Amino acid sequence: MMQLLHEIRQSPLLWLLVFVPAVFLVEAYAADRSTLLFVLSVLAIVPLAALLSHATESVAARTGDAAGGLLNATLGNLTELVIALTALRAGQYMLVKASIAGAIVTNSLFMLGVSFLLGGLRYHLQEYNRNAARFQAGLLFLATVAILVPSAVADVDTAAPAAVLQPLSATLAVLLIVAYTLGLYFSLGTHKEFFASEGGDGGEGHEAAWPLGLALGTLAGVTVLVALVSEVFVESVQHAAEAFGMTPAFVGFIVVALVGAAAEMASAFSAARKNRLDLSVGIALGSAAQIALFVAPVLVLLSYALGPTPMDLRFWPGAVVMMLIATITATLVTNTGRSTWFLGVMVIAVYLIFATTLYLLPPRAA
Amino acid sequence: MMQLLHEIRQSPLLWLLVFVPAVFLVEAYAADRSTLLFVLSVLAIVPLAALLSHATESVAARTGDAAGGLLNATLGNLTELVIALTALRAGQYMLVKASIAGAIVTNSLFMLGVSFLLGGLRYHLQEYNRNAARFQAGLLFLATVAILVPSAVADVDTAAPAAVLQPLSATLAVLLIVAYTLGLYFSLGTHKEFFASEGGDGGEGHEAAWPLGLALGTLAGVTVLVALVSEVFVESVQHAAEAFGMTPAFVGFIVVALVGAAAEMASAFSAARKNRLDLSVGIALGSAAQIALFVAPVLVLLSYALGPTPMDLRFWPGAVVMMLIATITATLVTNTGRSTWFLGVMVIAVYLIFATTLYLLPPRAA
Amino acid sequence: MMQLLHEIRQSPLLWLLVFVPAVFLVEAYAADRSTLLFVLSVLAIVPLAALLSHATESVAARTGDAAGGLLNATLGNLTELVIALTALRAGQYMLVKASIAGAIVTNSLFMLGVSFLLGGLRYHLQEYNRNAARFQAGLLFLATVAILVPSAVADVDTAAPAAVLQPLSATLAVLLIVAYTLGLYFSLGTHKEFFASEGGDGGEGHEAAWPLGLALGTLAGVTVLVALVSEVFVESVQHAAEAFGMTPAFVGFIVVALVGAAAEMASAFSAARKNRLDLSVGIALGSAAQIALFVAPVLVLLSYALGPTPMDLRFWPGAVVMMLIATITATLVTNTGRSTWFLGVMVIAVYLIFATTLYLLPPRAA
Repeated sequence: MMQLLHEIRQSPLLWLLVFVPAVFLVEAYAADRSTLLFVLSVLAIVPLAALLSHATESVAARTGDAAGGLLNATLGNLTELVIALTALRAGQYMLVKASIAGAIVTNSLFMLGVSFLLGGLRYHLQEYNRNAARFQAGLLFLATVAILVPSAVADVDTAAPAAVLQPLSATLAVLLIVAYTLGLYFSLGTHKEFFASEGGDGGEGHEAAWPLGLALGTLAGVTVLVALVSEVFVESVQHAAEAFGMTPAFVGFIVVALVGAAAEMASAFSAARKNRLDLSVGIALGSAAQIALFVAPVLVLLSYALGPTPMDLRFWPGAVVMMLIATITATLVTNTGRSTWFLGVMVIAVYLIFATTLYLLPPRAA
Repeated sequence: MMQLLHEIRQSPLLWLLVFVPAVFLVEAYAADRSTLLFVLSVLAIVPLAALLSHATESVAARTGDAAGGLLNATLGNLTELVIALTALRAGQYMLVKASIAGAIVTNSLFMLGVSFLLGGLRYHLQEYNRNAARFQAGLLFLATVAILVPSAVADVDTAAPAAVLQPLSATLAVLLIVAYTLGLYFSLGTHKEFFASEGGDGGEGHEAAWPLGLALGTLAGVTVLVALVSEVFVESVQHAAEAFGMTPAFVGFIVVALVGAAAEMASAFSAARKNRLDLSVGIALGSAAQIALFVAPVLVLLSYALGPTPMDLRFWPGAVVMMLIATITATLVTNTGRSTWFLGVMVIAVYLIFATTLYLLPPRAA
Repeated sequence: MMQLLHEIRQSPLLWLLVFVPAVFLVEAYAADRSTLLFVLSVLAIVPLAALLSHATESVAARTGDAAGGLLNATLGNLTELVIALTALRAGQYMLVKASIAGAIVTNSLFMLGVSFLLGGLRYHLQEYNRNAARFQAGLLFLATVAILVPSAVADVDTAAPAAVLQPLSATLAVLLIVAYTLGLYFSLGTHKEFFASEGGDGGEGHEAAWPLGLALGTLAGVTVLVALVSEVFVESVQHAAEAFGMTPAFVGFIVVALVGAAAEMASAFSAARKNRLDLSVGIALGSAAQIALFVAPVLVLLSYALGPTPMDLRFWPGAVVMMLIATITATLVTNTGRSTWFLGVMVIAVYLIFATTLYLLPPRAA
């Protein structure tokens, strides 16, 4: 605990933690100040993300990069899950889907691209374990196919009835969860040596690795705080978006996804700058794969219990195209296991094309 | 001949051969028992496929894996050709196209995936010659483009007249056959050293290789039987499908393709379990490429002579999307020339997504 | 100058230079003889292209293949830029777009494929630097995404108003130009050692490398002549096309692109036959990337000043599909950094599928 306070005093970024109680105070006494709540909740998530990042790295330092990356992706996606569950219970399925698709695209393009760029500005050429990257890109491809095929077929039968789409979506959801579970058994069990880090020893020392107890405690506590603040963020984001003149598609796809992934991004970017690109790629693609093969299917199945009606897996065509392009980009880009700054620029440019298109499109019910 | 009888007595699977005469008996005396004929013909094809597999392996053991794989793919696709020709003469072009698209998808996903899985359950990591896999994936990509481009363009000109589509299809068919022929000259002629097996010596011995005469005789005789039984199967499958509650799309795409490829599958799976993955990949992708670049174009050209009207190369959008995904999957998956059990799981999962979607879709005229 | 004349006397191909003044004479005194002008201008461009090729190779011999390839792509695309600017000023945006899309497809399929084929007929296996090819295929992929995403989204919102599409196109154009500029900084600056040639020393000697002054002077002078002749070609091509029974789509996509790229093709093919495949691939993909990331965006921005109304980046779906297939083909094909004659056959076959489809389609306003 002393170490935690010491850490906070050392790092100016963590002073932003003061915004965490501020969010709850404003919410309690001025819940209608949406734009203020939006700004405060974003400011509060940033230092929480940084703390989470440090705690996760401390655990990862003791468990190896593969398990550390998995741990990170699991906890980091709690934010996305909380956001989606809130929207699910309210029956806002379009928002759920936009945040799922946006999270996949943001993780596999923005997080990966900025990691490559930040790492590449420090190191001329970075190498990482392409087995791990290929594995996760493959999972992502599988999930994209599961989302694409019903959409493509539903376009053909212009009005495929819900009576067909719902059992199809539920079956595909089960299929994806089974594939994801087998994938964990593969990557942590039968073939875990494939996922060993490359060049991890060449990275800089982990100067202030916390003891395991403190790290785990911080992980748990900060995760809860992130969840609570995220809920305020979700409630305020639509109103604030209108105030700032953003389209709903842009908010769901870009803003929610960026803030939701803030915690993992801090970890991934920091790892890239320490030449531990294995960890960065593991967080970025592992997180995208987990959302696509675990979070999204779980939401489909939970919608039978929690939602007003069951949710299907069909996305609007633009979202399918973007997920497909993101998956292809991640596959092509991780093919060699090497990275330079310009690779980061290209991946970020693909993301900016998406963001620009969504920003300039007229508002619609996405 | 003694050796053949000895073989049959040894292997319980071959006792199913008793269903071959049973099919012909029932067809002669109770031709209206469609469901019974369907079940009998499936049961009869399985042991024939196993015999064909053993005979082909015996020949392949004397000719090397590349020529053996080609031989296997050539003879194995006779079944598909017989099915399609029967449907072509009856003018059932949708069934012809569904069985072509289904055969491509089944070979390049199901056969490849199960080979990877079965091999991977025995061996931690299998390696194979990726030159051969890339070559065949490239041919498959070419055929998919030839099918995709007229479909994409015909969508644009919403009502492209048959007067345009028929000469276009015939020209593209000739183009594909020329490319396929040049590909044979490349793989068996100028660059045949590229297609040599890897790790084939590490495989288990071919304990009971037949003499060449017996092997070739069995190949020829059993192929004729497969063709005759297949015809009964085609006639009965539609009625049986209705009895079992399957959609026509599912029957054409999945059931016909699975039974039609049974012979090659037995060979491919057996080779995978003997660590001769070169042969498995050669059969799976070689067969898919042969159907796409040779069987399908030949059917288009033959439709001018045999069919009521010429057949074009345009497929329904869902089929085009599935062929495209199958080709991309095969390309990505064979990129490294290495395989584990989970790679098999992922490829099978893509196939299951297709099968589930087609099974749950409401019946339509596919 | 003496050396230039000597060169012309040696090479029968250059005797075609006599058609250059012939073009201008006929244009001055019989400007309505469109078909004659078309034939003459094609005949005049061929020797100019050959001269340009020799001059560029002379400069490339002194600057290394990477810089030489860039130089070649820059000057070679002047033809395309002149054609497009002429059409832009006349407000013929469909022709501008067809020539852009056609140039991308022609360079990345026809020029690459014929280079592979010609090189492969002489050498059993050719190797080249795949870093350079991957870099350019990546840029091409980025441009295709920038063109695909607005088209995909505009299909969704069936009638996206120009008020949205124009600022979107302008923003994406700026994004592409920034990415292209950073790419030049990467390939010529921070990471230029990645782009060094492989096997270039193994190539045949450059027997008649001109002095730098003569080479640069020839480059400049011949480029101007190519531009002037191209303008005659553009004016006459539509009338001539009708006389020969070609569709407008075929003319814009195939004929204009082939003649426009004649100069670069001569260089690329000659390099392939000298086993300098790095230069061939650099010209083919570098030129396609430059048109996609530099020429096309510049045209969009210039349309605000020169055109009657601003031009957007939206292409007709068939063109988007073809550009996408061309990019995927180039990516897959350059993945290994090795080439044989049959790889050339496959790439050319993809191009022929496009050409056949466009040739047989009924005329439309493409």
